[in-house]
Amino acid sequence: MIFDIVTIFPDLLDSPLSESILKRARERGQIEVNLVDIRNFTFDRHNTTDDRPYGGGEGMVMKAEPLALAVEQRKSINPSGKVVLLSPQGAGYNQTVARRLSRESGLILVCGRYEGVDERFRAEYADEEISLGDFILTGGELAAMVVIDSVTRLLPGVLGCADSADKDTFSRNLLKHPQYTRPRVFNGLEVPEELLSGDHKLIENYRFVAAVKRTVQRRPELVKREQFSRNELKVLQQHGLYDEVIQIQKDRK
Amino acid sequence: MIFDIVTIFPDLLDSPLSESILKRARERGQIEVNLVDIRNFTFDRHNTTDDRPYGGGEGMVMKAEPLALAVEQRKSINPSGKVVLLSPQGAGYNQTVARRLSRESGLILVCGRYEGVDERFRAEYADEEISLGDFILTGGELAAMVVIDSVTRLLPGVLGCADSADKDTFSRNLLKHPQYTRPRVFNGLEVPEELLSGDHKLIENYRFVAAVKRTVQRRPELVKREQFSRNELKVLQQHGLYDEVIQIQKDRK
Repeated sequence: MIFDIVTIFPDLLDSPLSESILKRARERGQIEVNLVDIRNFTFDRHNTTDDRPYGGGEGMVMKAEPLALAVEQRKSINPSGKVVLLSPQGAGYNQTVARRLSRESGLILVCGRYEGVDERFRAEYADEEISLGDFILTGGELAAMVVIDSVTRLLPGVLGCADSADKDTFSRNLLKHPQYTRPRVFNGLEVPEELLSGDHKLIENYRFVAAVKRTVQRRPELVKREQFSRNELKVLQQHGLYDEVIQIQKDRK
Repeated sequence: MIFDIVTIFPDLLDSPLSESILKRARERGQIEVNLVDIRNFTFDRHNTTDDRPYGGGEGMVMKAEPLALAVEQRKSINPSGKVVLLSPQGAGYNQTVARRLSRESGLILVCGRYEGVDERFRAEYADEEISLGDFILTGGELAAMVVIDSVTRLLPGVLGCADSADKDTFSRNLLKHPQYTRPRVFNGLEVPEELLSGDHKLIENYRFVAAVKRTVQRRPELVKREQFSRNELKVLQQHGLYDEVIQIQKDRK
């Protein structure tokens, strides 16, 4: 998969692309990441990429032309690349979007900055507009990194175990169960005995119940969307969680 | 404000901390960022920071001890630092959380990795647990960067204009209006005439209506939470948006 990052700060993403899973995926040729400097698509002496907004107001707006030229150049190399503008005005990002994007052959990630990008660039060039969440970042660069990281994890062969991506949080609408590793006693706290039992069914049920408990407490809106099997409902009943879960699901509008 | 980032990949964050607003804020002493390598708090030959989960299963769990020692060391220097664990199991991050965190004197950001961190570390040391959103990242490092960037923007004196942080998206429950800058015609598309009128009231109303339209289309759930003034409701009526907005707000549960 080819990622093109269109940005005025190409150096900003150097180090996150050079560590851990992304580094390895690049070395193996599973992904290719190109940092595209918008300034290379300006023709004035000052390499101007932004200007004041029409109608007045604070801040600077990113000019349409350099962005358009940068995107057109990348498209000429990678015609099927999907153009994604990262901005707080976009649709929310989540694992479903990540899965969908991971089926593209290329993503051209355009990093907005300042007070936004010229609306005409968005309208004419962006295939979609994505927001990482309801918070303000200085620019789209970190959002682009998040997209690259979360999408790359989903590409075949990138993670060590074939299925470890699937078992992550959000493959179901449940938070992950608590995890424990050695030592058996830390700060006087013991590992729950179920996990030491060696009984696979007991461990599985313990983890399932712990995951549901945690989700009920922290993210009840996820529980609403989850479908439980008959056997799972039985386990929830045995652990006194059935009524609470059913109540949350009934509140669904 | 002091940010301590507790991570097994301290180099990963080098470049984002060395550009743009964060670079400037560090140079001016408005923020201090310390990269804390968890491996420095291990005592075995292989600097082990993770181990297999009790109860079995794929992946590795981050050990409680090195994390605890790293956090204790940072706390000894900066006792009022708030310990924030970044993990997909945390509460959702948004601009309200960013504002709250910007009032702390220090944040000790602990970057989870792999299949999670030992639950006993979380229970004993984390003041809070934050998730960037419902997607899976390789580690908490990018999430920590997002927190640092969004919180730093809110610190007094960091942004050029005193109030440009406040006018950003999400200071109200409305997406930002479209922006335009030179040239006046791009790809045959003109800047809307209202923005060229020089009439401040007309421009303000145009932008307000465009922001509401965009929010109604893309993020109706934000419109539900927004409070409009009497005058704003009048403007919405003049532009044929009143009924739609009221209908969305009525659907509130």
